[in-house]
Amino acid sequence: MTRTRVNSALIRRINTGRLFHIIRQNPGISQQRLSIQSGIDPATISIIITNLETTGIVRRTTDAPTGRAGRPTVALNIDARAGFLAGIGIEPDAIRVTLATIDGMACADVTVAGSTEPEAAALAAHEGVAAALRSVKAGRGALLGVGIALPGLVSLEGRVVFAPNLGWRDLDIAAMLARHLKCPIRLENDVKAAAIAEHLFGASRDITDFVYIMGRSGIGGGLYMMGEVYRGPHGLAGEIGHMKMVPGGRACGCGARGCLEAYVSERAILAELAAKGHQARDVAGILRGFEQGDAIVGAVLGEAGYYLGLGLANLINIVSPRRIVLGGSLARLAPCLLPAAMDSLHANALAAIMRDVELVVSVLGDDAAPMGGVALALHQFLDDPPIKLGRGRDHGAGPPE
Amino acid sequence: MTRTRVNSALIRRINTGRLFHIIRQNPGISQQRLSIQSGIDPATISIIITNLETTGIVRRTTDAPTGRAGRPTVALNIDARAGFLAGIGIEPDAIRVTLATIDGMACADVTVAGSTEPEAAALAAHEGVAAALRSVKAGRGALLGVGIALPGLVSLEGRVVFAPNLGWRDLDIAAMLARHLKCPIRLENDVKAAAIAEHLFGASRDITDFVYIMGRSGIGGGLYMMGEVYRGPHGLAGEIGHMKMVPGGRACGCGARGCLEAYVSERAILAELAAKGHQARDVAGILRGFEQGDAIVGAVLGEAGYYLGLGLANLINIVSPRRIVLGGSLARLAPCLLPAAMDSLHANALAAIMRDVELVVSVLGDDAAPMGGVALALHQFLDDPPIKLGRGRDHGAGPPE
Repeated sequence: MTRTRVNSALIRRINTGRLFHIIRQNPGISQQRLSIQSGIDPATISIIITNLETTGIVRRTTDAPTGRAGRPTVALNIDARAGFLAGIGIEPDAIRVTLATIDGMACADVTVAGSTEPEAAALAAHEGVAAALRSVKAGRGALLGVGIALPGLVSLEGRVVFAPNLGWRDLDIAAMLARHLKCPIRLENDVKAAAIAEHLFGASRDITDFVYIMGRSGIGGGLYMMGEVYRGPHGLAGEIGHMKMVPGGRACGCGARGCLEAYVSERAILAELAAKGHQARDVAGILRGFEQGDAIVGAVLGEAGYYLGLGLANLINIVSPRRIVLGGSLARLAPCLLPAAMDSLHANALAAIMRDVELVVSVLGDDAAPMGGVALALHQFLDDPPIKLGRGRDHGAGPPE
Repeated sequence: MTRTRVNSALIRRINTGRLFHIIRQNPGISQQRLSIQSGIDPATISIIITNLETTGIVRRTTDAPTGRAGRPTVALNIDARAGFLAGIGIEPDAIRVTLATIDGMACADVTVAGSTEPEAAALAAHEGVAAALRSVKAGRGALLGVGIALPGLVSLEGRVVFAPNLGWRDLDIAAMLARHLKCPIRLENDVKAAAIAEHLFGASRDITDFVYIMGRSGIGGGLYMMGEVYRGPHGLAGEIGHMKMVPGGRACGCGARGCLEAYVSERAILAELAAKGHQARDVAGILRGFEQGDAIVGAVLGEAGYYLGLGLANLINIVSPRRIVLGGSLARLAPCLLPAAMDSLHANALAAIMRDVELVVSVLGDDAAPMGGVALALHQFLDDPPIKLGRGRDHGAGPPE
């Protein structure tokens, strides 16, 4: 049985990560408040915060005394000077790099031309990171980690299993980039990465169970379950775009027929419009047609919305998320898709399960993939911090290891 | 954010549970071997085993010296005399009680008449448990816990949300039974309970990610993910029988159309056979017709198998389990359903995800629900053991609590 061994080092890491995120989301929080919010005792917090301060990750500032007690308040902040995390969104035609401080605040954004040739793509990604680093003030901090998000199946070990749009199969793109960049690199499917970003930086911070469904050329899914993105035993879970909606239905790029993405992806909607003689070439064109009350656009979006609602009903019945988050083209097309989608959703989800589900549109927009990369880099950074966090008498000293 | 607080008490409980299950599955194991297999250090194991021995859960026996070293070997066993767990499978027409020792070995089995009247059902369940206890030797041990498995939606708090076959809605059947039985009682949806039994007592002991799909009047699902059954934020996840296979297709008991269970449940297959003029009245009749080469039976099972394969492909694409386990009527009909199901499964699951998935038939058969109840009772017993497990210097003493 593969299980994470539960020991004091793991507790220390989990507690450190929890405190990091609470401070990140509550800049200036006091240690006392941190203890209340985390449920971790003050002595343990003190030791962890000292470690985080020693490593330059957290900064304590002392405010002037307030209130009658007259004791100065110590405010905790993630130290933005600690260094940078780079998130890389790889697409066939463009590579987008977002540079962020370790609290996840974006501070630079660079887009370079992409390539389906792996070495060229790795080199371009490196150049994008270098350009982003140059654009921020020199010497302000090192690059602490890189996360790459790309459209394709990614194994638990961080290898590309299959990325049809890029034409990559069984490829270690992270290792290629590692020849240019000397820092930890983590690779993930872009929708799973976006789901992590949605949880860390988006509107779903307090939600431990949600489904992120992203439209782009296809439809991808990220199942965020029990507080983490669900990868499945091989890292490949979440291919909700290939749920079959119509037996023997429209041909899909995967080789099968009737898949959800053959009805609701940007490409599918554009193809259906073209087949009906409409001229729209992109999401903006679809939106324009919808606003102008074009009958063809209305009919095609009504059909796409119907299938979107049916697919969401299936997900709700199976996975029972607290929330469904629409991203990418589904976010931009939401105003036109949701009327029909809500109808079929309510007609097909079990009422008892549907009752408490929220349907929301991601606020990350086109930043989802590169911010997903930043989220991966932050996870990597917290999973394996640059220095060993010390062991204290009181913070989970456990069995001999 | 709702998260389990990670502290030393939790570690102690997790380690105790792990050791319990390793001993249960390896009767007579030595402490040394237990340490190797669990990865827990000998000092910690020694303390936990002493606690388990003091509470009568584990028994140490000393064998005669073997080998050159001449030291006697201490063999560990779960002490079957510690007491009993009762698993109760509730159906409208029958209530089945399986009594087991705490190692999960069934020792008595009683079926009593069921009732859709809740108080009557609770009383009948109590009488079933009493009869089962009478049938084992008196005074051999107390009833330590009860698990109830029933067909319906069960909330995280253990209330029946909706059980259509029983006609129950928002009902605390466990509290009704608790008026008759003075021990902890846990309630769960029967298919989720069966999935837990499959993991504890069935063929999927070493599998942390599998989908249990059970046919009965309807089709139910249990998603076993990351080593535990996935309940979702309200406890209602796993309703895979209501995945839509055909837009606007066959009417389903849930009120929607085209659900998987409207094509592959025992009831759906029998209804389709009846509509085509065939006389089969139960699974045995279906099997008989299939063996006799009846063309109607062949066509109906071929269609059901096709939709079963399509549904499994969706589950594989979304959840990417290591294994899919067929239970209930799907297990019994597997020989007739699988040829068509495998064809549509392979045509519709993504090859990279499908590669390592196993499709197996549950060995628990009709015992799935009552053994599911035993599994719930065992989980409850280990989550909240009858005495507090002591704290030792070396086994995960953590922060002040």
